[in-house]
Amino acid sequence: MGMHDSARPRPLPTSASYGITVRLYAAPSASVVGMLATAVGTAGGLVTAIDVSESRPDRITIDVSCSASNGEHAAEIVEAMRGVPGVTVHRVSDRTFLLHLGGKISVESKVPLKTRDDLSMAYTPGVGRVSLALAAHPEDVAKLTIKGNSVAVVTDGSAVLGLGNIGPGAALPVMEGKAALFKRFANIDAWPICLDTQDADEIVRIVRGISPGFGGINLEDISAPRCFEIERRLRAELDIPVFHDDQHGTAIVVLAALTNALRCVSKTLATARIVISGGGAAGTAIVTLLLAAGAAHVLVWDREGILSPTDPTLNPAKAALAAQTNPAGVTGDLHDALRGADVFIGVSAPNVLPAEWLADMAPSPVVFALANPDPEVDVDAAQQYVAVLATGRSDYPNQINNVLAFPGVFRGLLDARAREITVPMLLGAAEAIACCVSDDQLNATYIVPSVFDPAVPTAVAAAVREAAGTQQPTEPDDHGLH
Amino acid sequence: MGMHDSARPRPLPTSASYGITVRLYAAPSASVVGMLATAVGTAGGLVTAIDVSESRPDRITIDVSCSASNGEHAAEIVEAMRGVPGVTVHRVSDRTFLLHLGGKISVESKVPLKTRDDLSMAYTPGVGRVSLALAAHPEDVAKLTIKGNSVAVVTDGSAVLGLGNIGPGAALPVMEGKAALFKRFANIDAWPICLDTQDADEIVRIVRGISPGFGGINLEDISAPRCFEIERRLRAELDIPVFHDDQHGTAIVVLAALTNALRCVSKTLATARIVISGGGAAGTAIVTLLLAAGAAHVLVWDREGILSPTDPTLNPAKAALAAQTNPAGVTGDLHDALRGADVFIGVSAPNVLPAEWLADMAPSPVVFALANPDPEVDVDAAQQYVAVLATGRSDYPNQINNVLAFPGVFRGLLDARAREITVPMLLGAAEAIACCVSDDQLNATYIVPSVFDPAVPTAVAAAVREAAGTQQPTEPDDHGLH
Repeated sequence: MGMHDSARPRPLPTSASYGITVRLYAAPSASVVGMLATAVGTAGGLVTAIDVSESRPDRITIDVSCSASNGEHAAEIVEAMRGVPGVTVHRVSDRTFLLHLGGKISVESKVPLKTRDDLSMAYTPGVGRVSLALAAHPEDVAKLTIKGNSVAVVTDGSAVLGLGNIGPGAALPVMEGKAALFKRFANIDAWPICLDTQDADEIVRIVRGISPGFGGINLEDISAPRCFEIERRLRAELDIPVFHDDQHGTAIVVLAALTNALRCVSKTLATARIVISGGGAAGTAIVTLLLAAGAAHVLVWDREGILSPTDPTLNPAKAALAAQTNPAGVTGDLHDALRGADVFIGVSAPNVLPAEWLADMAPSPVVFALANPDPEVDVDAAQQYVAVLATGRSDYPNQINNVLAFPGVFRGLLDARAREITVPMLLGAAEAIACCVSDDQLNATYIVPSVFDPAVPTAVAAAVREAAGTQQPTEPDDHGLH
Repeated sequence: MGMHDSARPRPLPTSASYGITVRLYAAPSASVVGMLATAVGTAGGLVTAIDVSESRPDRITIDVSCSASNGEHAAEIVEAMRGVPGVTVHRVSDRTFLLHLGGKISVESKVPLKTRDDLSMAYTPGVGRVSLALAAHPEDVAKLTIKGNSVAVVTDGSAVLGLGNIGPGAALPVMEGKAALFKRFANIDAWPICLDTQDADEIVRIVRGISPGFGGINLEDISAPRCFEIERRLRAELDIPVFHDDQHGTAIVVLAALTNALRCVSKTLATARIVISGGGAAGTAIVTLLLAAGAAHVLVWDREGILSPTDPTLNPAKAALAAQTNPAGVTGDLHDALRGADVFIGVSAPNVLPAEWLADMAPSPVVFALANPDPEVDVDAAQQYVAVLATGRSDYPNQINNVLAFPGVFRGLLDARAREITVPMLLGAAEAIACCVSDDQLNATYIVPSVFDPAVPTAVAAAVREAAGTQQPTEPDDHGLH
């Protein structure tokens, strides 16, 4: 594909997330546009648009938009265009950064504010009557305010995506993206709350402090083990549901995908031997949900080896995990755990195992290598050993994407005016996602529905409402005089 | 005007904020609609719409929409319609409550989320590059996130409108209304934060905790004297501006209105004798700003009498106010303070003085009676004694409305990426509002511009930017590769 291929073990696919637009100046020439396109292609880039944006007798201005694999690759593409004779690079714009300028979400008024009468209903004096009514009937707050449809997306910036502890300001684009997804997939009004502290006591105190205005709390990208304590304490203290998406969202989608993967290989959850790599936030939640769903043979592997109740050196969170999972007290390394296993679920780190080890699993193994962007195992090498493969990436089949879960989960919680999240809700959500793949559709490359399938959030919300004991969404009725 | 007039000292004007829609059933008849309209009018209501929404051989359904003076009056109007022969009342809907159903604001995505490419730029993996760039360059957070345009509207629900300590849930409709006004008048994305605590330490801690995601803090409806400490500590601790609208927003508009009122009566701020009724949040801020603007003769009256530095029993906040204002150590009651005064500014409570006392003021007195909804003095009775009269109500000329100030103030602060609010900004904002009334327009019934005058927030923002040392709004530029 190009001059750099020899130096690369495998060319990464180009991605719109690395799209750039390069403005170049060139002497007017019939051939320069073609030469630029060739240069981009030779450097492994994908041209998405070429516009001659200005033409003067002495100079033409050309905007070349293209996708690259990563930042380094984008720089190589720019250099390749710079090498075309007579061309100078004026400016390189990064389309992802352009998209983020000014932020990705906005607050809009749902009521007209054109006349004095509008103001007198939406604000003083009319709003005063609504406030007085709510002071007398606090149970109506969710109905007559945004509380009934709003979620706080709360982070301390300690474990953002795979980027680590980058802090609250740098986490904000992620939380805004999450808020945009909440609106896009479930019509929920979510607002990012980025905290200036990583102290668990402080976080609990602050989230409790702001809770009256929200109908739910979505904890996001808070590192383990603090996330466990924070979630537990908030659930105990608040009268609105608290959901740590990195845990429960992931667990829901993993259970859904595993349900369908096991359908593909004609195995059952109750008899499958499951190995989980990673005893952090996601791994812990996955264990809990798989056990609740009927899994009976689960081992968790982490830096310490196979987590075993016989190991006195484990920290409390991992000791608890060991006690839940490994009654036989198996010890050993990841390779030991994999021998004869039916399922591997990686929620840990890049390249923790060579693909060859997968050959030692039971027949028709199911492998979910979810570390992002670099999975636990070389995915291309793994293909030959496995029956079903899933990753966290969008450039392979079977992407395990939390977007399948959290919008519908919160839609259901808000519709039901739920005060807490229960395990039956999580199980119902997973089943709903799994059922969005029909028997006709199901195969080893299609174990989860598309994130754009509109049936998914609707089905998830219905399952959560049903588990909450509310069959129908709460319909706002009109409101008479008191 | 109707059967109840004899019992009312003065009929209150009807208001859209008390609009109701009444659904009635009646036997088909040519005269029933007219009789209903007459009934509403006789009861003092204002019919805004009559729709026959269904017609059957045995029954017609009629929706009558009308405005009332208050809730009691609305009930009287309904009773009057119930008295029309053959009519039954099916349902009474309150249009202000209907408007509030589901809340008044929403969060919208500003970026498309239709395709996988969209997701990969707005969320993972593309957003990860933006987050990494912000971790390396925290100064870019305001540019690449919503922080650059967002304001937290923070309340503890302790002093909501004139309703008192009604708590955070009941305060939420007011804060949502404020957020809607921020968008309407200054294109700012504001989100309500209603706190479950009224402890000053906790409030400071929580607001500091959530501050990384916001470009400014608007404190709202927090009672004195806690509001002073909370604002002072937050200003010291945060790197974004903190503005208590009940103080500084009110002070700005009062100074603007007073500037123009004194133009009307050909007096000057430096020589005017000014009496302020109410030493709470608003009164304190008004004193500070008037003194900064050049006022030299200010007395504050409150429950304790004229606040005097010679009074050892005053609480610290009021002692500070006395020390700022009353160098001669004048003592006495409100009537004493008013004798010979040029200006009365009431930010206190209903009916603290009889209108007759105004006769003892200096010639051409200026009276701002801002307690809401019931002013410090009977406004109709006061008219004969005063040269210029202003209130907080929309049904008299010269409404002192904070909407004239806070949207433009925060627009200017955000544009300038200001880290704090300064007195020159407040003075500039007041002057900008005053200047929106031209010499041609100025008269005793038009001392402040309309809240719908689009020149006002623009002028206020420009004044704040200028005081911040930034002449132009910060224009987002595009963002190259790092």
